Amino acid sequence: MVGERWEEAKRRAWERLVEDLEIGYLDDDIYDILKMFFQLPYAFTKSSCSGRITAVDARFPWSRDGTIVFKVHRTITLDELHDIMKKPVLRRLWLNVQGPIFHVMAKDLDSAMRVLRLAREAGFKHSGILVANEEGWLVELTTGVRANLLLKDGNKELMIANESTLNAINEVLLEGKRRLEALRRALAEEAGGGAEPPEAG
Amino acid sequence: MVGERWEEAKRRAWERLVEDLEIGYLDDDIYDILKMFFQLPYAFTKSSCSGRITAVDARFPWSRDGTIVFKVHRTITLDELHDIMKKPVLRRLWLNVQGPIFHVMAKDLDSAMRVLRLAREAGFKHSGILVANEEGWLVELTTGVRANLLLKDGNKELMIANESTLNAINEVLLEGKRRLEALRRALAEEAGGGAEPPEAG
Repeated sequence: MVGERWEEAKRRAWERLVEDLEIGYLDDDIYDILKMFFQLPYAFTKSSCSGRITAVDARFPWSRDGTIVFKVHRTITLDELHDIMKKPVLRRLWLNVQGPIFHVMAKDLDSAMRVLRLAREAGFKHSGILVANEEGWLVELTTGVRANLLLKDGNKELMIANESTLNAINEVLLEGKRRLEALRRALAEEAGGGAEPPEAG
Repeated sequence: MVGERWEEAKRRAWERLVEDLEIGYLDDDIYDILKMFFQLPYAFTKSSCSGRITAVDARFPWSRDGTIVFKVHRTITLDELHDIMKKPVLRRLWLNVQGPIFHVMAKDLDSAMRVLRLAREAGFKHSGILVANEEGWLVELTTGVRANLLLKDGNKELMIANESTLNAINEVLLEGKRRLEALRRALAEEAGGGAEPPEAG
């Protein structure tokens, strides 16, 4: 039955999150968001990414058999961009900038629709329910924030790596981080809404 | 109530599709797919795109206030790419290649899950249920097939427009068209499955 193992799955997911935090696997900039999802009585997160810049040696930007040659969850410098351009390449070198993504498991259909509404209102306009299984209703929260630049074909450079290119790359990443802010506010309202006393003023 | 106007919405959507076909608005290469969706007793399409190449003058590839300066639903030539590079630009010039997208309205939740399964199996792995309203359950069928190349910043060229760049652009588009084939086969099986006698052999 859909969602019959939701409670158990949530408990295990929380244990894994605490472990990841201790080991240092977790993006610092979204721990508070993940925690707020867990505080909701009807949701928890399965996996997440705060937004990132990767360089991939692959035929296509999305190829699963590609080789990731660079990966950070922050803006990059011109030196880093130049270093990326110098990497030896077998296929094509793509620079992928990706906005934040969350996979949220909701307890039941009503909860999934609630997560979906909250996500849309926070600017995660490409969110949707992906599947329903024993663990619950899986909602993917995602934005249209992305770019996939073609840097090289084999070792032929196709992109000019200067300040203009760098600014475009970093601005896309930062736009993703801005969407995180909106989600953070929406979740604080949903999780805390009325439960906590307002700041004295 | 969710889906209470589904029948009426399906009738109107079919009338609009027939009109679009007569006027010539419709992509020829997906008319048969749309028709197969309409033949299912539990679904119809709201909008669709067979995959396309656009060039946009905008701060970001996804900006809604950008200006579309080029748009086709087929591969492009090197001459066309050179022409795109020559366009005068106010912000940035992005070349967006996008795989196929379908918005399918399903009659009820079971139907939506059925469309979702069919889509995933056909390689539309980023599909999800977006909303539920009076017209039904809206399922977006989409793939990870895309690229967003940064061609220019203002009038400064950042990309080298040669055969290698052209091939990458066209290969991404064609990969999207290949996914259409898989969807076409899955729909033919779902729509025709068992209802029509098999070919005599």
